[in-house]
Amino acid sequence: MIPRQARKSIGTVINGKSIAEEIRSRVASEVKRMKECIGKVPGLAVILVGDRRDSQTYVRNKIKACEEAGIKSVMAELPNYCAEDDVMTAVLKFNEDPSVHGVLVQLPLPEHLDEEKILNVLSLEKDVDGFHPVNMGNLAMRGREPLFIPCTPKGCLELLIRSGVEIAGKKAVVIGRSNIVGLPISLLLQRHHATVSIVHACTKNPEQITREADIVVTAAGVPNLIRSSWLKQGSVVIDVGTCPIEDPSSEFGYRLVGDVCYEEALRVASAVTPVPGGVGPMTIAMLLCNTLDSAKRVYGFA
Amino acid sequence: MIPRQARKSIGTVINGKSIAEEIRSRVASEVKRMKECIGKVPGLAVILVGDRRDSQTYVRNKIKACEEAGIKSVMAELPNYCAEDDVMTAVLKFNEDPSVHGVLVQLPLPEHLDEEKILNVLSLEKDVDGFHPVNMGNLAMRGREPLFIPCTPKGCLELLIRSGVEIAGKKAVVIGRSNIVGLPISLLLQRHHATVSIVHACTKNPEQITREADIVVTAAGVPNLIRSSWLKQGSVVIDVGTCPIEDPSSEFGYRLVGDVCYEEALRVASAVTPVPGGVGPMTIAMLLCNTLDSAKRVYGFA
Repeated sequence: MIPRQARKSIGTVINGKSIAEEIRSRVASEVKRMKECIGKVPGLAVILVGDRRDSQTYVRNKIKACEEAGIKSVMAELPNYCAEDDVMTAVLKFNEDPSVHGVLVQLPLPEHLDEEKILNVLSLEKDVDGFHPVNMGNLAMRGREPLFIPCTPKGCLELLIRSGVEIAGKKAVVIGRSNIVGLPISLLLQRHHATVSIVHACTKNPEQITREADIVVTAAGVPNLIRSSWLKQGSVVIDVGTCPIEDPSSEFGYRLVGDVCYEEALRVASAVTPVPGGVGPMTIAMLLCNTLDSAKRVYGFA
Repeated sequence: MIPRQARKSIGTVINGKSIAEEIRSRVASEVKRMKECIGKVPGLAVILVGDRRDSQTYVRNKIKACEEAGIKSVMAELPNYCAEDDVMTAVLKFNEDPSVHGVLVQLPLPEHLDEEKILNVLSLEKDVDGFHPVNMGNLAMRGREPLFIPCTPKGCLELLIRSGVEIAGKKAVVIGRSNIVGLPISLLLQRHHATVSIVHACTKNPEQITREADIVVTAAGVPNLIRSSWLKQGSVVIDVGTCPIEDPSSEFGYRLVGDVCYEEALRVASAVTPVPGGVGPMTIAMLLCNTLDSAKRVYGFA
């Protein structure tokens, strides 16, 4: 029988929304200071190809966040069936534009476009998403410093650090190995001296491996995958999964759920991020940070 | 009490020496075929800075192996206190030389030289060591293909494959996280769908983590670190560690030992690589393969 107190919530909710707001307000005051001191502001260029509704929403949110922080944003919208050269031209134009300090190609691209080829031409100095292989290689290699750390992984790390979670020497399990989340978060945690295991679709007994972790970062995109039986008592759980599921009672007919059975996790873990309101808001906050840092580097502004 | 049969050797010795010889002989016949068909041979350039005896030995062995395989080798030797520009000039010269298909800067470099800066100018198409961040980034990222996989990790993988070890879905533990072995082998095993954990100096209970692995690749450089108690029954152990220890009875006054207590491991593991004669010979064999592949790519020779 489960002892009674084990059924109660013991975990803290990691409030990504309020942490992200704090960071965005800090970025805004830094941008203001930059403008006052040198008469310049950071600039972000976003390239959106096609008409995916989720991508449109993400891009709109990014641009809105730039506006609120005083970051100049420009956008290139290209139709679904545009030629690869058109996307390349847009990237190269922003690479050359001195008022642009970050260039972002919203992923995924339509299938006929070669994502690798397009991302490879993106200026390393403006790769605020951190997806260029040189940035990824430098993130992986010890003694190297990537110019940019991908936004979602950077946001996860920030949540851990701000929640006072010790990382060095701790067992961390990353669930999922995508290029944009799982891979860079595993490299980043290792950089901070965690003992990292990467769990993915081919892993046998993922539950058993995850149950040994002090820190769990999950980016599987499988609603309610992580039950309380997957978690060690007192662990910290960062939920990157966001999956829309139908919900007629909601305003939009759907709601977002993470990989983690949130209420269950709170009974076992010491801290858990909610979905929504956990990692999601941090991604945009980190994009603003990366863009600001890039502009500071260009202008030598400290 | 340990049951009697557990004390007997049950493991197979993975004979890296004979596998490496077989690969080298295959490379030699490919080089011969290339010469006969198109009148060209692969070329390797080696840059050696300073007078480290171990580096001199490694470079000598590489050049000898090239000769035996019919690969043309050229060498640039620079004194310990040369300027960074001199090393850069040597790299750039070989980058431009069309008869050179692989350029290798023997590491470690003397401390006053910026290794990162030097390796970054090395032509990506000639980076047969696979240490350029673009190659490392592409090794890490799913759906990307690095032009070259670092030689020692590639050799470890080859030993596993040739020994009939299944990798997908297996638990693999990599001990050590150096840029030249631990990191790329962990990325490579993950590419082959193993569930990978990386153990390093900050890891608590490395023994416990390692004992759960089906595949152990160790590159810690700590003699006899891995005792039988670290290993799961039936696991496969690849020992990359090579440490010279004093041995007055040996011809040179020292002998090489690995990270693994070899005799102990053979009693528990299903297969173990010896030191010497395991991974060591594979590194050079893979360097020849990478150089051959590079030349084939340049000449469009299949």
